[in-house]
Amino acid sequence: MDSVEKLTKLFESFPGIGPRQAKRFVYYLLSKDPNYLSEISLLIKDIKKDISQCTLCKKFFSKKQSENICNICSNPERNPEELMVVSKDSELIAIEKSGIYKGYYFVLGGLIPILEKEPEKRIRIAALKERISKAKEKGLKEIILALSTTSEGENTEEYLKKELGIYGLKITVLGRGISSGAEIEYIDSDTLKGALENKK
Amino acid sequence: MDSVEKLTKLFESFPGIGPRQAKRFVYYLLSKDPNYLSEISLLIKDIKKDISQCTLCKKFFSKKQSENICNICSNPERNPEELMVVSKDSELIAIEKSGIYKGYYFVLGGLIPILEKEPEKRIRIAALKERISKAKEKGLKEIILALSTTSEGENTEEYLKKELGIYGLKITVLGRGISSGAEIEYIDSDTLKGALENKK
Amino acid sequence: MDSVEKLTKLFESFPGIGPRQAKRFVYYLLSKDPNYLSEISLLIKDIKKDISQCTLCKKFFSKKQSENICNICSNPERNPEELMVVSKDSELIAIEKSGIYKGYYFVLGGLIPILEKEPEKRIRIAALKERISKAKEKGLKEIILALSTTSEGENTEEYLKKELGIYGLKITVLGRGISSGAEIEYIDSDTLKGALENKK
Amino acid sequence: MDSVEKLTKLFESFPGIGPRQAKRFVYYLLSKDPNYLSEISLLIKDIKKDISQCTLCKKFFSKKQSENICNICSNPERNPEELMVVSKDSELIAIEKSGIYKGYYFVLGGLIPILEKEPEKRIRIAALKERISKAKEKGLKEIILALSTTSEGENTEEYLKKELGIYGLKITVLGRGISSGAEIEYIDSDTLKGALENKK
Repeated sequence: MDSVEKLTKLFESFPGIGPRQAKRFVYYLLSKDPNYLSEISLLIKDIKKDISQCTLCKKFFSKKQSENICNICSNPERNPEELMVVSKDSELIAIEKSGIYKGYYFVLGGLIPILEKEPEKRIRIAALKERISKAKEKGLKEIILALSTTSEGENTEEYLKKELGIYGLKITVLGRGISSGAEIEYIDSDTLKGALENKK
Repeated sequence: MDSVEKLTKLFESFPGIGPRQAKRFVYYLLSKDPNYLSEISLLIKDIKKDISQCTLCKKFFSKKQSENICNICSNPERNPEELMVVSKDSELIAIEKSGIYKGYYFVLGGLIPILEKEPEKRIRIAALKERISKAKEKGLKEIILALSTTSEGENTEEYLKKELGIYGLKITVLGRGISSGAEIEYIDSDTLKGALENKK
Repeated sequence: MDSVEKLTKLFESFPGIGPRQAKRFVYYLLSKDPNYLSEISLLIKDIKKDISQCTLCKKFFSKKQSENICNICSNPERNPEELMVVSKDSELIAIEKSGIYKGYYFVLGGLIPILEKEPEKRIRIAALKERISKAKEKGLKEIILALSTTSEGENTEEYLKKELGIYGLKITVLGRGISSGAEIEYIDSDTLKGALENKK
Repeated sequence: MDSVEKLTKLFESFPGIGPRQAKRFVYYLLSKDPNYLSEISLLIKDIKKDISQCTLCKKFFSKKQSENICNICSNPERNPEELMVVSKDSELIAIEKSGIYKGYYFVLGGLIPILEKEPEKRIRIAALKERISKAKEKGLKEIILALSTTSEGENTEEYLKKELGIYGLKITVLGRGISSGAEIEYIDSDTLKGALENKK
């Protein structure tokens, strides 16, 4: 297998990339000058050098900010009573951008597929429990599970509710309701039920 | 213009049908036997004979059931304190199917486009007011606007809130929240806000 | 089953129409005035009265033009040496519009699905043979099979080549090649082969 | 701008990648171990070391095969009378796979957008002319322009016909026709015209 094939294989493992686009990436790189190749190569090799993973919430963040704990986890003005559990960094970023949540976060690092026999290998459940124990000392009262309402998300929700029951904390999930741009005619009855319960 | 062209034009006015499909409908009919043509022709001509429009909620229903008032409006076991306003018959049917609403309905017959100068020609606002006046005598306390969260739906919501303010009733809208099958990463901040407010 | 349900069922049999859109058609009709309903009803009932099917090519056409034979088949200036076989009226119309064919036509009325046991019930093979016999007397030299290159189209092509072999005429099919707007990277090798053979 | 942002920007320049997927790539890399990162980093840095660009056809190929001239250009059994011009390496590969072409190739490296003022910067026109001069000495008789039939492709075809007129060679383009899986009803008249001219 030559370099083109090897690199194509690696790009195929990127999220959402098939063989054809992977090959296009390689031809794209072949068309660039050596400076560009050096730059991207170095950035990839050292991507973890500049980036820490927060020891508390597991979010990735720039080491320029701090060494171990991210901006949010180290912010004393956040509400210590709430901990929101999300699946991915990108979801945490989306929620922060909306500016509507003021508590702390935890990034699970994945969701649990239906019938998964070793769920503890799919998500950071041990780290989450550790985080909760610490947060309880600081006044944590509620764990908000902000998970996708897909089958994997709901499976994860169920698993977490069971695993986290021991803490005696309030465990909530996001409210169901009608989303922006939705048409009444096409919403399912679960969503409709939530929308009706939450009318205001 | 010959019959094929005339009928094509009429089919083009059907919801969601373009010129090409309209023409296909005509060729489809040309390929059917005279009995089929008589049957569909008669059903169309007499479609209103067998169908009443409920004088109260404006829903269409089979005359076999009753002459003037539909099954729902004539049901004394429904909750007289709630009136839900929907845009179309099909939405009313979808909500009834879910079995989660027990009050009465009103079908607006449309939505008001942005910048419409004569909104009263787009929806049955006079009939709605009449319905509300009558329902108030029977104990109506809340009007639920169950409209799509599209721009037309929100424009209609605004218009109705202004027009119906005079009755001094509680006017609610469906709660925003995460819908079934939604992914956290892709929900907009309005929806997220609703989902967070309605967490449970 | 009431009229709404009956008519919905009939609309569901229209090409490309599912249950939801069929129901929408019925509500659309319920919203129209009696004049509209009478007009469309009458047009449907009498659609065959105003329309003839050409005894030669089997195309539908307005009786105003003539009683038995369509404009094209009765046009002595068309090229009697060529007969183009198409599946549907709409294809004949599309080809006529392009203005690039000057011979006569025959409309098969369908295509033969793979594994069909009674192909003669799917297409007008008897009428086609009759047409060819007549056309041969007038100088027919070539039968052009202008069929879709789908599996049904290719199955029909094979069947026709076998059935029409007896006439000793040239039987041709449309040339393969690159179509307008196509990208080289995505064309299959059959198409590429045709495109290369037909380069000019 | 930190490393995550820098790398995200670089991935955004990859063909077909938007900001959201670029960020996902970075998080994907953050989740991989250092070995993986070293491997992909090294492959990218050295991608050009293992890969030559053929001095004749401009195709990229593995240096393991040879230093300067690719397998195809160095094959004396190919037909010296034909030179096929394609836009991209991937198109050459697709055509080779089909096994239907036996001449030589030239890879333009792009297409010329409509209204481009400096077309010579978009494609390798100078190298193509050089290639043609050399090939003429070896018996070249025909240049086949195998370009997409998009507006960019047709613009490039026009430009090449003008620029290459000086050589007095036959310049051909791929034949238009019906492609595999196409439906007669939906083909445009240019395609239909080609399909009819190329019937067989």
